[in-house]
Amino acid sequence: MNNLSDVLPGKVSREPEDLRCYGFDASGLEAPPGAVVWAEDERDVVKVMQYADANNVPVIPRGAGTGMTGGSIPAEGAIVLSTERMNRILEIDKENLTVLVEPGVINGRLQRELERHRLFYPPDPSSLNFCTIGGNVAENAGGARAIKYGVTRDYVMGLEAVLSDGRVITTGVKTAKGVVGYDLTRLLVGSEGTLAVITKIRLKVLPIPEDVITLLALFTELEPSGEAVKSIIAEGIMPRTLEFLDAETIRAVENYKTIGLPRETEAMLLIELDGAPSVIMRDAGRISDICKKLKGEIIMAENELARMKLWEARRAVSPALFHISPTKINEDIVVPRSRLSEMLSRLRLLSRNTGIRIVNFGHAGDGNIHVNLMVDRANREEYEKAQKLVEEIFRVTLELGGTISGEHGVGLTKQDYIAMEIHPAELELMKKIKQAFDPKNLLNPGKIFP
Amino acid sequence: MNNLSDVLPGKVSREPEDLRCYGFDASGLEAPPGAVVWAEDERDVVKVMQYADANNVPVIPRGAGTGMTGGSIPAEGAIVLSTERMNRILEIDKENLTVLVEPGVINGRLQRELERHRLFYPPDPSSLNFCTIGGNVAENAGGARAIKYGVTRDYVMGLEAVLSDGRVITTGVKTAKGVVGYDLTRLLVGSEGTLAVITKIRLKVLPIPEDVITLLALFTELEPSGEAVKSIIAEGIMPRTLEFLDAETIRAVENYKTIGLPRETEAMLLIELDGAPSVIMRDAGRISDICKKLKGEIIMAENELARMKLWEARRAVSPALFHISPTKINEDIVVPRSRLSEMLSRLRLLSRNTGIRIVNFGHAGDGNIHVNLMVDRANREEYEKAQKLVEEIFRVTLELGGTISGEHGVGLTKQDYIAMEIHPAELELMKKIKQAFDPKNLLNPGKIFP
Repeated sequence: MNNLSDVLPGKVSREPEDLRCYGFDASGLEAPPGAVVWAEDERDVVKVMQYADANNVPVIPRGAGTGMTGGSIPAEGAIVLSTERMNRILEIDKENLTVLVEPGVINGRLQRELERHRLFYPPDPSSLNFCTIGGNVAENAGGARAIKYGVTRDYVMGLEAVLSDGRVITTGVKTAKGVVGYDLTRLLVGSEGTLAVITKIRLKVLPIPEDVITLLALFTELEPSGEAVKSIIAEGIMPRTLEFLDAETIRAVENYKTIGLPRETEAMLLIELDGAPSVIMRDAGRISDICKKLKGEIIMAENELARMKLWEARRAVSPALFHISPTKINEDIVVPRSRLSEMLSRLRLLSRNTGIRIVNFGHAGDGNIHVNLMVDRANREEYEKAQKLVEEIFRVTLELGGTISGEHGVGLTKQDYIAMEIHPAELELMKKIKQAFDPKNLLNPGKIFP
Repeated sequence: MNNLSDVLPGKVSREPEDLRCYGFDASGLEAPPGAVVWAEDERDVVKVMQYADANNVPVIPRGAGTGMTGGSIPAEGAIVLSTERMNRILEIDKENLTVLVEPGVINGRLQRELERHRLFYPPDPSSLNFCTIGGNVAENAGGARAIKYGVTRDYVMGLEAVLSDGRVITTGVKTAKGVVGYDLTRLLVGSEGTLAVITKIRLKVLPIPEDVITLLALFTELEPSGEAVKSIIAEGIMPRTLEFLDAETIRAVENYKTIGLPRETEAMLLIELDGAPSVIMRDAGRISDICKKLKGEIIMAENELARMKLWEARRAVSPALFHISPTKINEDIVVPRSRLSEMLSRLRLLSRNTGIRIVNFGHAGDGNIHVNLMVDRANREEYEKAQKLVEEIFRVTLELGGTISGEHGVGLTKQDYIAMEIHPAELELMKKIKQAFDPKNLLNPGKIFP
């Protein structure tokens, strides 16, 4: 790869330390690439793809590497194409409620910048302080606010992207509507870097909500928390978040960082409402009534500091779980909201039957549960048992009308299971689409499809 | 086509009257098919496609034929596959806020049925009392409420569809989130019947809004109406409709059906707010203040009857326009909201320079203008001049950052212009996608691509 450095002087590294750093992501998997390139604009991306096309070298587009399914783990000898330096917010168009950003912009930075303009970009994956908008688009990232505001896909209006042969395409529109030709924009969203390298993103944004209220509901039994979720929705209330932590998660959090949750808590809901103050105060009252009838205890945050305090437990989940076992197998199944309680009961039963500890938390409003199998990869017998349990969990999820991934995508870790959900005819169409975009299979090869 | 009737007894017609009826749509174009089939379920659709595949006969999926760009005009000898009899609402799932429908369900019927369950399906194309959900999905229909609630695409969670060779696919999920594989669902939305025949549709629905207020704002000059639209959005108010009628439209409506609008009205906004009563009353007051500062006159509907009265002018637009000239060339351009006034001025100038009467109305909140060139097809010179003017209008639209179609799609009538908006590399990808789905080019051939 000598002449790659000539094509992109000062932007290429083959230093072992860099290759190591860019060889892993949040999946825990690892495989060093052949080179790392830090592109600074779409012309750099074009150069990389022209080089890759001419030399048949695979290219792995990479945001911040916060993906959970190994989507940015390099193929052998691949170029990792980092978008970290493409981190400019190019335009904030308040009149048309859109922004234009480069893929390397950090989600949380965009959120804060927009707030200063009284604007709001709803998608908020848990990794929002690290993950990039480009990665969010490539994975169609969700988040806690999806129940009311939808996911990344719902905010992407148009894209600029570089094809595997180095040609630049633009998709979508700058306007609220547009129906000319097939929807290439939404096809690229969630395509996990396998179809094109995204170089510019036009997002829809909203006026900032007038006000926010945060509530914590604590239950001494599991079932009533599920009932509360159902009743809130049945009442026509649409909270912006409706997060759920089970007893195992709460205990893990308390052991990691004393928050002061009652020891007997078996389930916790973290509920956030936004909108006009009078309406959210009224709805907070209705939610309190629902939870109290179900013997839940309600804590309400009256100001920003109190809100942050309530989010503390939720934010502490990920670090806390790293302390309770060497390996965490993290799945992100979704079931229809009405089947949430049933799914949680089934998970409890599966845990009991296999002896494998399962910790559940996630987005109750969406039926999106983060199922964590707490094991030790070094214990081969246990790890294999856990792998089998994952398959069983997916089987139950699909039986209840769900999906095996709500937010994380397929990447490497879910490849073996994709055929459980997607039938051969649809998989065949997807593979043909991949071939139409990337006939030489240069872009993030070996991902999604087994 | 003798054995088509054997395969689908009682569901096939070759009667001249039927062929005539199924040979035209709202574009005004006409071409009789070779046969009409009324499918009753997806098995019938499978039989039609197996027959078509074996005999190389083109198939034109058809809802109610309300499309504006000739999308359901048959190719020569084609089978028109009507979904009219596939009109069952299969499931209303209040807990999970989804419905499952067949493609032949009329949009307005679904709206009314959902209302009885206190649910709400926002997309409301003007033809909602006639058009089908299947047609809405195939065209990615918009409507007046898109400013707040988005378009059809934003409500389609999953599809069942039949491929050109008769295989059945299912796409998407029943859940709020799902990121397994490429987004075939959104690829089928807006594909104008060229990729697959849609046989079942799972839609997201919302809790019904608590209350609605309707306002009419009348202006004696054009510019302040555009300023009002900008100011409303800048204030962070998000009406559910923000419709616009220009002076020509208002006069055409008054001549057709006396509504009683002041003669000197040069522009009218029809504004609807929904949500909690206290909030929409407050926001209606803010909108009144904005409009009054701009010398607009405000009329507010206090009840359902008054609301209907205010909508009368808007609803009368289409029939009224049919009375002012023999031929109406109806375009549905979109510009960024901030460029709306500029676009309207440019249109006025183009009308003056060419002597062709242009009537504009539409969705000001989206920047989506229905531009109507009032001509006489029999007057060849005038008609040719109008065709040239259409191209000029598209050129200006794109110059202002817009799109040549916000709602109607490409079909037949916009084919010659698609390359003005979509570049060769993207068109090539679209054609490859078409080939991946439909290698024999049987499904709605000759549409979208020139």
